[in-house]
Amino acid sequence: FMWNTKKEITEPKVHEWIQPLDDQDSAKWTHYDAVILGVPLSRSSISASSASENPEAFRRAWKSFTTYNLDEDLDLSELQVADLGDVREHVTDISICHDNIKEAMKAIQTHHPDSLPIMIGGDHSITAMLIKGYKESHPSERIGILQLDTHFDLRDLTDNGPSNGTPIRNLLESKVINGEDVYNIGLHGFFNARSLKQYADEVGLNYITMKQARKKGIERVIHEALAELETKVDKIYLTVDMDVLDISAGPGAPASTPGGMYIHELLEAVQLVGASNKVCAMDIVCLDPTKDIANATVKTGVHVMLSFLTGYKLRQEL
Amino acid sequence: FMWNTKKEITEPKVHEWIQPLDDQDSAKWTHYDAVILGVPLSRSSISASSASENPEAFRRAWKSFTTYNLDEDLDLSELQVADLGDVREHVTDISICHDNIKEAMKAIQTHHPDSLPIMIGGDHSITAMLIKGYKESHPSERIGILQLDTHFDLRDLTDNGPSNGTPIRNLLESKVINGEDVYNIGLHGFFNARSLKQYADEVGLNYITMKQARKKGIERVIHEALAELETKVDKIYLTVDMDVLDISAGPGAPASTPGGMYIHELLEAVQLVGASNKVCAMDIVCLDPTKDIANATVKTGVHVMLSFLTGYKLRQEL
Amino acid sequence: FMWNTKKEITEPKVHEWIQPLDDQDSAKWTHYDAVILGVPLSRSSISASSASENPEAFRRAWKSFTTYNLDEDLDLSELQVADLGDVREHVTDISICHDNIKEAMKAIQTHHPDSLPIMIGGDHSITAMLIKGYKESHPSERIGILQLDTHFDLRDLTDNGPSNGTPIRNLLESKVINGEDVYNIGLHGFFNARSLKQYADEVGLNYITMKQARKKGIERVIHEALAELETKVDKIYLTVDMDVLDISAGPGAPASTPGGMYIHELLEAVQLVGASNKVCAMDIVCLDPTKDIANATVKTGVHVMLSFLTGYKLRQEL
Amino acid sequence: FMWNTKKEITEPKVHEWIQPLDDQDSAKWTHYDAVILGVPLSRSSISASSASENPEAFRRAWKSFTTYNLDEDLDLSELQVADLGDVREHVTDISICHDNIKEAMKAIQTHHPDSLPIMIGGDHSITAMLIKGYKESHPSERIGILQLDTHFDLRDLTDNGPSNGTPIRNLLESKVINGEDVYNIGLHGFFNARSLKQYADEVGLNYITMKQARKKGIERVIHEALAELETKVDKIYLTVDMDVLDISAGPGAPASTPGGMYIHELLEAVQLVGASNKVCAMDIVCLDPTKDIANATVKTGVHVMLSFLTGYKLRQEL
Amino acid sequence: FMWNTKKEITEPKVHEWIQPLDDQDSAKWTHYDAVILGVPLSRSSISASSASENPEAFRRAWKSFTTYNLDEDLDLSELQVADLGDVREHVTDISICHDNIKEAMKAIQTHHPDSLPIMIGGDHSITAMLIKGYKESHPSERIGILQLDTHFDLRDLTDNGPSNGTPIRNLLESKVINGEDVYNIGLHGFFNARSLKQYADEVGLNYITMKQARKKGIERVIHEALAELETKVDKIYLTVDMDVLDISAGPGAPASTPGGMYIHELLEAVQLVGASNKVCAMDIVCLDPTKDIANATVKTGVHVMLSFLTGYKLRQEL
Amino acid sequence: FMWNTKKEITEPKVHEWIQPLDDQDSAKWTHYDAVILGVPLSRSSISASSASENPEAFRRAWKSFTTYNLDEDLDLSELQVADLGDVREHVTDISICHDNIKEAMKAIQTHHPDSLPIMIGGDHSITAMLIKGYKESHPSERIGILQLDTHFDLRDLTDNGPSNGTPIRNLLESKVINGEDVYNIGLHGFFNARSLKQYADEVGLNYITMKQARKKGIERVIHEALAELETKVDKIYLTVDMDVLDISAGPGAPASTPGGMYIHELLEAVQLVGASNKVCAMDIVCLDPTKDIANATVKTGVHVMLSFLTGYKLRQEL
Ligand SMILES: [Ca+2]
Ligand SMILES: [Ca+2]
Ligand SMILES: [Ca+2]
Ligand SMILES: [Ca+2]
Ligand SMILES: [Ca+2]
Ligand SMILES: [Ca+2]
Ligand SMILES: [Ca+2]
Ligand SMILES: [Ca+2]
Ligand SMILES: [Ca+2]
Ligand SMILES: [Ca+2]
Ligand SMILES: [Ca+2]
Ligand SMILES: [Ca+2]
Repeated sequence: FMWNTKKEITEPKVHEWIQPLDDQDSAKWTHYDAVILGVPLSRSSISASSASENPEAFRRAWKSFTTYNLDEDLDLSELQVADLGDVREHVTDISICHDNIKEAMKAIQTHHPDSLPIMIGGDHSITAMLIKGYKESHPSERIGILQLDTHFDLRDLTDNGPSNGTPIRNLLESKVINGEDVYNIGLHGFFNARSLKQYADEVGLNYITMKQARKKGIERVIHEALAELETKVDKIYLTVDMDVLDISAGPGAPASTPGGMYIHELLEAVQLVGASNKVCAMDIVCLDPTKDIANATVKTGVHVMLSFLTGYKLRQEL
Repeated sequence: FMWNTKKEITEPKVHEWIQPLDDQDSAKWTHYDAVILGVPLSRSSISASSASENPEAFRRAWKSFTTYNLDEDLDLSELQVADLGDVREHVTDISICHDNIKEAMKAIQTHHPDSLPIMIGGDHSITAMLIKGYKESHPSERIGILQLDTHFDLRDLTDNGPSNGTPIRNLLESKVINGEDVYNIGLHGFFNARSLKQYADEVGLNYITMKQARKKGIERVIHEALAELETKVDKIYLTVDMDVLDISAGPGAPASTPGGMYIHELLEAVQLVGASNKVCAMDIVCLDPTKDIANATVKTGVHVMLSFLTGYKLRQEL
Repeated sequence: FMWNTKKEITEPKVHEWIQPLDDQDSAKWTHYDAVILGVPLSRSSISASSASENPEAFRRAWKSFTTYNLDEDLDLSELQVADLGDVREHVTDISICHDNIKEAMKAIQTHHPDSLPIMIGGDHSITAMLIKGYKESHPSERIGILQLDTHFDLRDLTDNGPSNGTPIRNLLESKVINGEDVYNIGLHGFFNARSLKQYADEVGLNYITMKQARKKGIERVIHEALAELETKVDKIYLTVDMDVLDISAGPGAPASTPGGMYIHELLEAVQLVGASNKVCAMDIVCLDPTKDIANATVKTGVHVMLSFLTGYKLRQEL
Repeated sequence: FMWNTKKEITEPKVHEWIQPLDDQDSAKWTHYDAVILGVPLSRSSISASSASENPEAFRRAWKSFTTYNLDEDLDLSELQVADLGDVREHVTDISICHDNIKEAMKAIQTHHPDSLPIMIGGDHSITAMLIKGYKESHPSERIGILQLDTHFDLRDLTDNGPSNGTPIRNLLESKVINGEDVYNIGLHGFFNARSLKQYADEVGLNYITMKQARKKGIERVIHEALAELETKVDKIYLTVDMDVLDISAGPGAPASTPGGMYIHELLEAVQLVGASNKVCAMDIVCLDPTKDIANATVKTGVHVMLSFLTGYKLRQEL
Repeated sequence: FMWNTKKEITEPKVHEWIQPLDDQDSAKWTHYDAVILGVPLSRSSISASSASENPEAFRRAWKSFTTYNLDEDLDLSELQVADLGDVREHVTDISICHDNIKEAMKAIQTHHPDSLPIMIGGDHSITAMLIKGYKESHPSERIGILQLDTHFDLRDLTDNGPSNGTPIRNLLESKVINGEDVYNIGLHGFFNARSLKQYADEVGLNYITMKQARKKGIERVIHEALAELETKVDKIYLTVDMDVLDISAGPGAPASTPGGMYIHELLEAVQLVGASNKVCAMDIVCLDPTKDIANATVKTGVHVMLSFLTGYKLRQEL
Repeated sequence: FMWNTKKEITEPKVHEWIQPLDDQDSAKWTHYDAVILGVPLSRSSISASSASENPEAFRRAWKSFTTYNLDEDLDLSELQVADLGDVREHVTDISICHDNIKEAMKAIQTHHPDSLPIMIGGDHSITAMLIKGYKESHPSERIGILQLDTHFDLRDLTDNGPSNGTPIRNLLESKVINGEDVYNIGLHGFFNARSLKQYADEVGLNYITMKQARKKGIERVIHEALAELETKVDKIYLTVDMDVLDISAGPGAPASTPGGMYIHELLEAVQLVGASNKVCAMDIVCLDPTKDIANATVKTGVHVMLSFLTGYKLRQEL
């Protein structure tokens, strides 16, 4: 008598497709189109945050998604994707955490440079570390950033160190990225200081507010940003701060704003970016599942990842 | 001294208009333009659901709606509408519940074929029973289905019986409905298996995803579906699975999705359908009021019903 | 050793800009471009309401907003704005509360007629008192009302006195306002009685439902209403009933409706109104922070105030 | 075919026992052992309160209680109990509400002096009106009060009128009650001003704090208070302010305190009081169902009513 | 580089101790002191229930418990315990579910009669099936039941079949259990019909209400029930309906009552029962994690399991 | 006209008594009986925590408490108490935060050694820093700790540094405290590893679990611990980890446990400790107001502070 014999899988779900990778499996990394890395760090956040719980929240939530995208008649399960688990964090020394994150990205680039890395944060401080790790692995590449965010993330690091308010400034000051190679889409009035806007202008950073982007059309804005970036840089890194969402759509992103991006706009945006040949990596940050309601923002975050992979698959199919 | 003397009604509310019908009143059914039937069954749901609580939640929520639709300068209270109460359910034998549901629809068709029946679910398994009951009363009619849903509802019945994952398959396999007479609008990527899409194609089912529908315009999509159906079938049955809503708009529909339909789109869609002369019945399913937040999805569901009746009234006024 | 020495302010927040005014400071009122007055009265609400808690909720919430509006590259901190505190209320005598509110508006007009008053309610009954107070200070001015609301607020006062269901009727019957000088935008089907629509038509009140406004475009609707008002009246009073929002966007406005206004539409509307030279005051009402979720509606309300002030600043800059 | 035929009642629930009384039924009042009156007034509350929603919340909640008390092997359905509905309230004139409440109690005493009245508030201001109404009907009776409350309710009426902070002071100052005839059990440190304690001492009011009562034993404290009252007064009125509960047990009583009464203690206390021959009426106040969690405090409130009726029935059986 | 290398376990947690058992491991069952079986069935519940989600909720929650019981200086990890996974359920045929549950218990008894089975429900209907399965494996044993419950669970099966209102009646009518061998502790007034009390008396069932048990002392009541049972029966089955808890302590048990059992009393009770040599199995039912608040009831349920195992370990140590 | 003139204070509330101290006021410290210091650090917590929000939550919550303790007929407002504000924290360098905390305690001891310091955390890591600061100011004093906690807090610091799992170990290893001078009351089975118990025994630490303490009586347990400490040490530091509470009473203390301390027990315990002449300071930690429900745990925490001060005042009155 077998009471819990598993059924044959006829409707593959994301958790049946993305397989956890044990340490000893690292030799097999060459098999993967994409790798997913959890970065459960949020003690570096300015405001108290439990975004560190998000990687596990993603893994639970993606059990309710199938691998098949009916919109495009495309099955993500044809991609080989591994879940590398989480970067190990230290409880009381944030610089160790940040080093581990950078080293993790370097390890990914070393062991298998052909996999597309997708990082699940954690707060936005991780982006500086991930891009630094990428840059150390590819010192000659010029990297551009496409950032979907309510904020510039250009605060001064001398005040409080590499927090979630500083990643772009960090990358600019450390010469990893040029100001002109950053495109920030979705910024919001009343949530950025004038001084940061002035800094952005000084370094030649490109940006458009959500209000302006909506009038122009998100799709067109994304296309233009990609087109400009593709002429300038070797690789594009997509960073999605979930607080870019409208406050009605992002309870799990505590800094989401009245008048922010709607979910269908965000999904469309990331799919377009995923389809760009120069896009080399992406992360999703500042989603705090303990503040979410009905798991709505976590599910939206998972869908962002799947829409990005849809773009990536469409890229391959061309 | 009378402390609770009722005021004269100057702002009629829905509960002052829709009157409960006692058993002995059934002779009076001929008076009604529409009849409302609660179908409090959700133990047939794949995922644990309390959609069975929804008929009572509707009745409480509609107390806050007036009968007057300012948008169309039209008063629903000019329609005669009765609340038939709930289909009786059995606790541990779902097949008895399903039989009762079918018999209830047949009783409606027998005692008063001219009333428009509106069924408040319950989970989506009830739709198969309701349409079967309708078909048994009108064996010669060709019935079409206009389905607003995130899902195909085409799963195989041999696995788990007539659950909320199977109603359309059930109707197709039992030859009650032809595949070409089903129009599903609002389907979502990553929530349907590829195999179900293939089945849909095999049987010639018509469908459009939410993403595609939004690009085309919901209004136009509905008009086209109605136009095609009206040429093919005798009667159209509208089934509204509330999980077609966007996840930000449908906390009480646990399967609502990121990127789903917005409320104003849904209300517009059902009003258009209600105005079609061939539409003979509608149901609203998969709304679990115990998971709702601030009663928002329940109120939206009630408004769906009222928008549908608005269409119906507009139909009469032509 | 100083452990709580304050940092220099580099990112000015709204609470560092809007300064509370002590009683003895009233002589200094001539310094202010705008003054903010809390009106914590909601025991005059038909349905039980804690909108009285909203002024304090606003003050807490605006700590998370900067003064700089990136959308317009404009810094509100260049305006001098004072927080006058709250109108004093009586616990069991609502007519005393209403008198205090009227007197407070008169005091503002007396001590400094050049400041733009912004009132934070409270329920909608306060609007009648505020406009009466304004009228008593400016008896010769013809005042128009631009109302964003789900409701007409035209109920009969003989039933239950000056509640939140009656402010416009109150102003019309007391001849403070002409029917033709009221423009109501955002009304909703099924939440207004036919009798109130008939009354509105009799007095020549102007209105457009949300559904109609969305089809026409909110921006255009606002422009047309302002254009008409500007030709007729001396001053325009903006009253924002937060229940004009869609139910997915306004959990803290318990009467918000399925199909209501989206947040970005509301923000755009109030900014446009703020930029009109004839606009002399505004209030925000019927926001109950105890029913809010994740403080979303309160934050939206604060943003409404800031968007209105943005319009006001743009007016000055011309 | 009858799909909603009612089953025979084998497990009588409270709502099948307590029957609503229509206006025209008042002649039949002589049939009732007890009558229940809703008093949906809370706009007289110092803090914003929705206790006005409580009578309806009680009526919904008592559907889940049977009439049979297994603890005492006693069936309340042997008592004849009528639900008189709610006292009619005015929206903006609280003195009218208070008059209506007083008149309602007088009507009860006039039409049927032998029924035990149970009043469901509403805030605590109603108690003064109810006892005044009782006193006007029975001017020669000396009435005592047994109060379960965190607060003295002895605030000065000259400040804010007859609010929920003043009912006992109101009754003392109007000479309806003597200070020595009030027994307050459950008072809490840090929630009463010293000045009120001094007033209580001056008028000879009897009181014991919750901390002291717990050390002594609630059962004994109640017995002693009843014994003293029974020797002094003709009738005893029980008033239960639900904020007497511990904060872990009374989320729906927003003023409940850390260290308050536990539920089993409260239930025992009211049953003991109900069994006293001199107890002539009771009320339950300051329960705000909109702040409740999982309906726990509302259910507790209903149980308080049923435990009181249990005591009343035991009284009859002696 | 290894970023997610696991640390050595120095503080063993429950999930590191209880190991999932694959199908093919069944030969190894002889190794286990206890086996845990999930029974995710709640569509057989009278009221809509998601108790089916509870086995998974338990598995997530026990990650926060260590295996060491400081109260008794005893480490559960010295016991060998396996998690057998969940009984497979059918979506629309409850009788199949019930058969599977019975067969699962028989399989446990067949493959390893020496393991103590612990079943995690699910609703209370499962207890009848589990005990029937046990009885079929041990037809000659006289089995007693110690039930902690707010309810008798003695409803008539002819009405609605084997639901969560009937398990004890089911076992009595099928002669699996004698009335005198059932001890129900924790019953509550106003939540049981008089007719069920009469049935209980007729069959000689033993019971004590919570109110009576608290006066006597839970510890003593448990000791006396065990003492009586041990003289009469061969084996004792413990069934814990979580609704025995006080309503302030059991939000995840929707039927928990005002005046119910406190958590420390429940934990003490189950530990005492676990220590009885004749106790052969236990189940925990009617815990709906979707209604829980802050996971409090789920954590309490896990602790009930661990306290029971503590008793079992103490039994071995004698 | 003055609309917001303040009333005379007749019922002094805690916020009208405890006055914030500006930087420049430090010379006046000699006036204070007690000083309150916020320590908003929780990024040093093992589990993600927003206990950093607690000092501000306390300040908001104490507005609803009067200064008068009716239980003891004692008014805390006779004590001079200052609020020193919060220790300044660094976003990304926890060691700076910890140094600031230690320095803050030293500054308190330097500028006014006669004030009783009360620290509002933050997580439990702060206790080690606070006691180290105290010890550096009083190197010759032997300090004892009375700890109310579910946990030993004896984890090894070499793993993750000075987190909230290590404060007692930290103090023992740094020779600031002797093992025999620590009394831990309220420990819970299944939330501490055996290895920590062994360490506690090795260093001679005194402890009693909550289950054992309840059987003995909390009052007696506290008296005995104080009596032993008073014979051994010069000063006693009280540290209250709010997770000592029962899970039904402490939703805002995420690690509170089934079977923990009830609120009335905790309040009694801290008052007894406050009355001990040797008690020199206290802190309250691990209360995360963002996880609280109905502000219940925050209010309980404030009451803990007031009950402690009640003890302190009783000490003076002897
Ligand atoms: Ca951001
Ligand atoms: Ca960011
Ligand atoms: Ca469906
Ligand atoms: Ca669906
Ligand atoms: Ca209004
Ligand atoms: Ca309105
Ligand atoms: Ca009171
Ligand atoms: Ca009170
Ligand atoms: Ca049961
Ligand atoms: Ca039960
Ligand atoms: Ca601790
Ligand atoms: Ca702890």
